[in-house]
Amino acid sequence: MGEPLVGVILGSTSDEAAMEPCMAELERLGIGYDFIVASAHRAPGKVAEWAGSAEGRGLEAIIAAAGKAAALPGVVASHTALPVIGVPMKTSDLGGLDSLLSIVQMPPGVPVACVAINGARNAALLAAQIVAAAHPEVKAAFHALKEEMARA
Amino acid sequence: MGEPLVGVILGSTSDEAAMEPCMAELERLGIGYDFIVASAHRAPGKVAEWAGSAEGRGLEAIIAAAGKAAALPGVVASHTALPVIGVPMKTSDLGGLDSLLSIVQMPPGVPVACVAINGARNAALLAAQIVAAAHPEVKAAFHALKEEMARA
Amino acid sequence: MGEPLVGVILGSTSDEAAMEPCMAELERLGIGYDFIVASAHRAPGKVAEWAGSAEGRGLEAIIAAAGKAAALPGVVASHTALPVIGVPMKTSDLGGLDSLLSIVQMPPGVPVACVAINGARNAALLAAQIVAAAHPEVKAAFHALKEEMARA
Amino acid sequence: MGEPLVGVILGSTSDEAAMEPCMAELERLGIGYDFIVASAHRAPGKVAEWAGSAEGRGLEAIIAAAGKAAALPGVVASHTALPVIGVPMKTSDLGGLDSLLSIVQMPPGVPVACVAINGARNAALLAAQIVAAAHPEVKAAFHALKEEMARA
Amino acid sequence: MGEPLVGVILGSTSDEAAMEPCMAELERLGIGYDFIVASAHRAPGKVAEWAGSAEGRGLEAIIAAAGKAAALPGVVASHTALPVIGVPMKTSDLGGLDSLLSIVQMPPGVPVACVAINGARNAALLAAQIVAAAHPEVKAAFHALKEEMARA
Amino acid sequence: MGEPLVGVILGSTSDEAAMEPCMAELERLGIGYDFIVASAHRAPGKVAEWAGSAEGRGLEAIIAAAGKAAALPGVVASHTALPVIGVPMKTSDLGGLDSLLSIVQMPPGVPVACVAINGARNAALLAAQIVAAAHPEVKAAFHALKEEMARA
Amino acid sequence: MGEPLVGVILGSTSDEAAMEPCMAELERLGIGYDFIVASAHRAPGKVAEWAGSAEGRGLEAIIAAAGKAAALPGVVASHTALPVIGVPMKTSDLGGLDSLLSIVQMPPGVPVACVAINGARNAALLAAQIVAAAHPEVKAAFHALKEEMARA
Amino acid sequence: MGEPLVGVILGSTSDEAAMEPCMAELERLGIGYDFIVASAHRAPGKVAEWAGSAEGRGLEAIIAAAGKAAALPGVVASHTALPVIGVPMKTSDLGGLDSLLSIVQMPPGVPVACVAINGARNAALLAAQIVAAAHPEVKAAFHALKEEMARA
Repeated sequence: MGEPLVGVILGSTSDEAAMEPCMAELERLGIGYDFIVASAHRAPGKVAEWAGSAEGRGLEAIIAAAGKAAALPGVVASHTALPVIGVPMKTSDLGGLDSLLSIVQMPPGVPVACVAINGARNAALLAAQIVAAAHPEVKAAFHALKEEMARA
Repeated sequence: MGEPLVGVILGSTSDEAAMEPCMAELERLGIGYDFIVASAHRAPGKVAEWAGSAEGRGLEAIIAAAGKAAALPGVVASHTALPVIGVPMKTSDLGGLDSLLSIVQMPPGVPVACVAINGARNAALLAAQIVAAAHPEVKAAFHALKEEMARA
Repeated sequence: MGEPLVGVILGSTSDEAAMEPCMAELERLGIGYDFIVASAHRAPGKVAEWAGSAEGRGLEAIIAAAGKAAALPGVVASHTALPVIGVPMKTSDLGGLDSLLSIVQMPPGVPVACVAINGARNAALLAAQIVAAAHPEVKAAFHALKEEMARA
Repeated sequence: MGEPLVGVILGSTSDEAAMEPCMAELERLGIGYDFIVASAHRAPGKVAEWAGSAEGRGLEAIIAAAGKAAALPGVVASHTALPVIGVPMKTSDLGGLDSLLSIVQMPPGVPVACVAINGARNAALLAAQIVAAAHPEVKAAFHALKEEMARA
Repeated sequence: MGEPLVGVILGSTSDEAAMEPCMAELERLGIGYDFIVASAHRAPGKVAEWAGSAEGRGLEAIIAAAGKAAALPGVVASHTALPVIGVPMKTSDLGGLDSLLSIVQMPPGVPVACVAINGARNAALLAAQIVAAAHPEVKAAFHALKEEMARA
Repeated sequence: MGEPLVGVILGSTSDEAAMEPCMAELERLGIGYDFIVASAHRAPGKVAEWAGSAEGRGLEAIIAAAGKAAALPGVVASHTALPVIGVPMKTSDLGGLDSLLSIVQMPPGVPVACVAINGARNAALLAAQIVAAAHPEVKAAFHALKEEMARA
Repeated sequence: MGEPLVGVILGSTSDEAAMEPCMAELERLGIGYDFIVASAHRAPGKVAEWAGSAEGRGLEAIIAAAGKAAALPGVVASHTALPVIGVPMKTSDLGGLDSLLSIVQMPPGVPVACVAINGARNAALLAAQIVAAAHPEVKAAFHALKEEMARA
Repeated sequence: MGEPLVGVILGSTSDEAAMEPCMAELERLGIGYDFIVASAHRAPGKVAEWAGSAEGRGLEAIIAAAGKAAALPGVVASHTALPVIGVPMKTSDLGGLDSLLSIVQMPPGVPVACVAINGARNAALLAAQIVAAAHPEVKAAFHALKEEMARA
């Protein structure tokens, strides 16, 4: 894999297991990524710096996963002009409805592209679709994947 | 505005009023778009053809809006490798929770980038972020918008 | 069992265990069925062909089971004039509320007959009630079942 | 219109306005229907007699509409072997989620075919699909409708 | 225990374990009860007869427990003038929200006294409060229980 | 009307309009009632005194109506051994789901008999069913009402 | 009113009408406040600076109101050690359930004190209870209010 | 630890395990607390006395945890002028949505500061933020904690 094209940020180390299919899919598609665990609520400065410098560091899309009052994707989006994909984490009490609404119901002006609860793999695929525009090898890999699914 | 970069598809003519801010924002950002009203359930052949030919026609992202059992964004995504942004329409009985879950809970393999219920303007902004990668003038327009928001 | 009267389509192999009571009930009632696993999102062409040819192949009703953003029953219904019974699969995060709303909230013009979350056996019974009109032996079997339930 | 093929039962006169598109669609398709307003809770004897005699009176499907703790479709189904279509009425407090769950979550053994909240027209179309098996003129009318929708 | 004062009806044998605290509390308070398992949907005649004869048999209150599209308490109430206590059973998919709404949202004219999801013990206590009016020994037992709780 | 048999307590004067059908039905059935407006949260002493003295003042059942975090019915029940009927008031934001869950989900030991959201009339009917045991004229009035409903 | 003790921050000018009772109550209690409108998503730098300097400017509590994916209270809390009161704004689609879950479900480490949907007045009262510890005149005003409510 | 500054009240002994992180955090911050288990519904007198005397006993904030129809925090708040922090307990059927709405939706006049479902640790931190105003050593401990989190 070459230079990182995608940033992956998790709100907590407890989200790593559920997000593993995201990293696996990025690797399978040959997309380099920049990985960090940082909470929007506990480490706001770290998140602001990472997100604010993402475009300058060459990233083209960001995946942000968080649970409960999941502010992370929106906070990341507030600090960057890159497209931000939000992944709501399943929660043990409300099943992830809290994470979902906290991520998807963004106010006008700052979009977040929300995928399904625990939709780790689709977050990677959506990132691939976005970076594919400027990276023909990713576009080719994605097309191959679609054909493989249709055959399976 | 030049050639269409974004496709906009609505499931019903009754969604046009709520989606008007999407078209207005695309126009404000100078992004050409291809517009169609076609129901995934009533006119599946028309949707399949429009979505299946989108990439070949030069589109780089698709915005699909639908309400209730809102299959349209996922059906469009099943027929194209382009990134698809789904806009859940507010409904008069369940407030749009039905549209939201029908769009956001996509199974692994076929992502949809879901925005807020009636999130018409953010759908346009997300499309702009996506096409910005290959269109510097869109990137510049988006950066200008972010700065304007921070000042307002 | 004679010729298939009912089509059974599942969106994923992971739905087979929950749908087993459906197939068991069809067999107990002596109703032949045509079985397929095909995702509306990953294999839209296969679904369209199977559903579009169902009436011509002699089927009289279709049972479609899917989970999450469960577009399958509606997509099948968009390709056939046969009555389509939708079975929302229970999900691990939202309990199946997502599947239910994605199936039951169909827009005017394309009905789906939705049964309970994981309502596999009732889907078979509803199919039996539908084909009973033209198949007296199914009608007799259904009447026998109702009497047996009342006695039990 | 000839002999009634479909029974239509409403739990309350207050449901008549919302169910008007159901009767209109049956009429448009040339399907005769037998109409009654009777509450499962206030007039259980009347409902039992009407539902219990439906098959003997020549009906082939029943449409039952009710709101709130909407027991009517299930109660009708408990008294007949005919397929029963349930229509959950929108409610002013919970939007119809109460009606929907009361109708769709039927226990194994007694199916109800649930359509959308206030899905009056789709209830008629589903009834048409069911009676179409034995009534070629209804089948023809339904096929014509599907083609018209695809063109529209 | 003397003559039965309370009727207890369950929609399914699968509800017996969750309802055991109800029977235990009735026994602890020395209240005789009449017990039956009968589904409103599978055995409507049996339910109608049991409920319709309850007042004549000397019962003074009825406890009806059911899950999912839990029509049983309302159906029992439609056949008797006695107060009916409904117990919504917890369900494996929606947690019992379906049972709760199916029981509590009764339309005007036919009340059901709904207790908590799986509120088996409170159903017995509410029945005790109701029969206490005409049975001083039950009233005394209930007062003793309240004092014991306050001390505990 | 003779001596009050039923206590009616509202959490707020803003609940009076929605509860008017309760008082009207009690009057129609000839049941005297004791009326008070007192908030469990703003005037706990007043509520405790009114509820604690209810049984001694000759009341036989209590109707308590409240909205939002509707503690009133449970608080009343904590201060009396009489059966307490809770009426969840519709709310402008969550439709009354908040009121409903706050009233119906009572913990073991202190039951509340919950009726539908804004179920004012049914609260009166349930109270009538409860006091009917010791008041033959109320029982007769309730039986007459049931027959009238079945005929209507 | 003397120096500001409480900070009030709204995510949008559209929240001002619903929050007016908050400001009115603070004024009635004689509590000075510092007021700002700034979106966590559109103007993150402004929010961080205002929240980060709040304690140094002499504020003792903060009230933050926002709707939809309401990150503002949590973001403010991430930048200050002061207690932060969150007010979820009612929304036109989901009634404010989205705002509520986005505010109340904060992860361990960064608490937000959430009040009711549109609970503007209670936010002011809670702030008063907090600053009362160090301001005897506020404590006296709050005690007077409680007595007045009990009398009313 | 010195004199108790915070009161901790649980509605049931079954809440102790989930609330343990609250007590642990108070201890870690060196904040003395007064602990009691008392149900608002089963032991209202005990709760009223404990809450009513809290301010006189030197407490500066109260943490109240309860599940289901969780009246305890509001009842405690009705008896004291101190700030009350409510902790909704997770429930086995509705996940704690019932507890949450019962606590957070307080009517105007009597605020409760609600934290997340099972938000035991945040309840302690919020109490610490409140007592910090008058206790510099608590303020110092809280500031140290924030810095530690940002570094972690």
